[in-house]
Amino acid sequence: MTLPALLDLASVFVFALTGALVASRALLDLVGFLFVSCLTAVGGGTVRDLLLDRAPVFWVQAPHYVLVAASAAVLVFFTAHFLESRYRVLVWLDAVALSVAVAAGVAVSLGAGHGPFIVTLMGVITGCFGGLMRDVVCNEVPLVLKAGELYVTAAFAGAMAAQLAFAFTDLPTLPLLACMFVTFALRAGSIQLGWKLDAYKPRPPRHK
Amino acid sequence: MTLPALLDLASVFVFALTGALVASRALLDLVGFLFVSCLTAVGGGTVRDLLLDRAPVFWVQAPHYVLVAASAAVLVFFTAHFLESRYRVLVWLDAVALSVAVAAGVAVSLGAGHGPFIVTLMGVITGCFGGLMRDVVCNEVPLVLKAGELYVTAAFAGAMAAQLAFAFTDLPTLPLLACMFVTFALRAGSIQLGWKLDAYKPRPPRHK
Amino acid sequence: MTLPALLDLASVFVFALTGALVASRALLDLVGFLFVSCLTAVGGGTVRDLLLDRAPVFWVQAPHYVLVAASAAVLVFFTAHFLESRYRVLVWLDAVALSVAVAAGVAVSLGAGHGPFIVTLMGVITGCFGGLMRDVVCNEVPLVLKAGELYVTAAFAGAMAAQLAFAFTDLPTLPLLACMFVTFALRAGSIQLGWKLDAYKPRPPRHK
Repeated sequence: MTLPALLDLASVFVFALTGALVASRALLDLVGFLFVSCLTAVGGGTVRDLLLDRAPVFWVQAPHYVLVAASAAVLVFFTAHFLESRYRVLVWLDAVALSVAVAAGVAVSLGAGHGPFIVTLMGVITGCFGGLMRDVVCNEVPLVLKAGELYVTAAFAGAMAAQLAFAFTDLPTLPLLACMFVTFALRAGSIQLGWKLDAYKPRPPRHK
Repeated sequence: MTLPALLDLASVFVFALTGALVASRALLDLVGFLFVSCLTAVGGGTVRDLLLDRAPVFWVQAPHYVLVAASAAVLVFFTAHFLESRYRVLVWLDAVALSVAVAAGVAVSLGAGHGPFIVTLMGVITGCFGGLMRDVVCNEVPLVLKAGELYVTAAFAGAMAAQLAFAFTDLPTLPLLACMFVTFALRAGSIQLGWKLDAYKPRPPRHK
Repeated sequence: MTLPALLDLASVFVFALTGALVASRALLDLVGFLFVSCLTAVGGGTVRDLLLDRAPVFWVQAPHYVLVAASAAVLVFFTAHFLESRYRVLVWLDAVALSVAVAAGVAVSLGAGHGPFIVTLMGVITGCFGGLMRDVVCNEVPLVLKAGELYVTAAFAGAMAAQLAFAFTDLPTLPLLACMFVTFALRAGSIQLGWKLDAYKPRPPRHK
């Protein structure tokens, strides 16, 4: 199994867990869990593959991705009530999934021969769109756009870190590790320590 | 006209009726009816065709699908006020449309030479995504994810029934009829008799 | 630079401005502005390119489109607080963007050799889907479906005007100008003078 495929698989599994947790918050039944899990798990990679015209999309070619997502849904359906705070677990798992998915997006689009700009964008898109679909469909406030959170920023910084690392090595391992590390570090700092960028202010003080 | 094309056409027409009914609940004008009807009618099949890389998507190749959807929108715009309960009609038409669309998705992806797993998924996707887009765009609670309803479950069971029936016959007619029958029966049981799967419970009794 | 590419570029810039204004209403940070701006700016054209199987989509082939959208986001982030009424500016810029994007959609799909029916639909889709994604993702009431507004209607009329003009000339310049003019005129009449089509009425007077 190649490194991009392995990253895709890991991000599919962890994103599926987050999808199932959102389904649990909406009190859906088992098939509802499966639906939201699969949508979240393969959503970002599917958008990436459609945009890059990789045909067919990764999980149509290799259906075990969907089985992995389905297993995650079943796992959460029968164990989520053991969790103290499902929302907290959801946010942290989402941070892990984001980090892995950005790296997967970078790896796949590099492998397809795209330049640094598109590779960076596809990292961000692969990372962000699965969670975005999950939240839009389940009518949650999209994590990706929550004011006062580093989310797209973390994905973007991670994808940029990979680009930087490629200046020093031709092998993908180190850049992809750097990508995951930077994405997760920024996201974790935002969750735990409240790191954020200044939000837009309708009337900033300096104009008073 | 081939059987898959006929099923696509029927599901387009009935889904367009449901789109127009949702538009009527949002008090849109005639062009709004046309927009929501067309989106609902071709949404599921479009996602399926993009995922399977069938190019171009079915209604770009054969625009009469869009005209059929538009006719349904006009029909509802001028007659919906004769209905006693538009929501009830909407839910039942949606059940019919779902059944036909799942069968259409199964038929089309079989015809494209895919295996049983992808065929089942494409049945579910063709059935569910048109209505999902309709509800997300019009800000209704998605029928597809409403707690305590068999919806994705009905679609999934229908697609599985088709697979079973293919074990006994090589012709598509019987499996597609089985698919429609099972999907509609489960959906109808859910609407009329309250059939449902157990929803996720944060703390099930056995853990008290 | 060809005329379709120029129209695409202009609609990308103006739609990006509207995306950033919506981001400012949601009090997002700079990266949130970039995300919503880019989604709004390239959303309609991306859906068009996927449906028409133009591979890869326009901005993957020519990433400067994304840079233009990003510049618009930065511009709005640092200047929007000078505006008296951001919502009013948003609605008018959206009208400009819609007009240009409908013309861009008509031009691109004509160039790809499609017939009048698909060309008209692609004009409407290119015009409407960027703003629709912007509003769904940011949880605003979609402008495209707001009751009592000419929006899809304006896009549709503009695309039809282009078709009419093609009966008199083979060059695209005049039809595309007609398309922009008609779309903008109807949209402006709707915003400023309250032009609208009759909305659906559950029980119209004649049935009392």
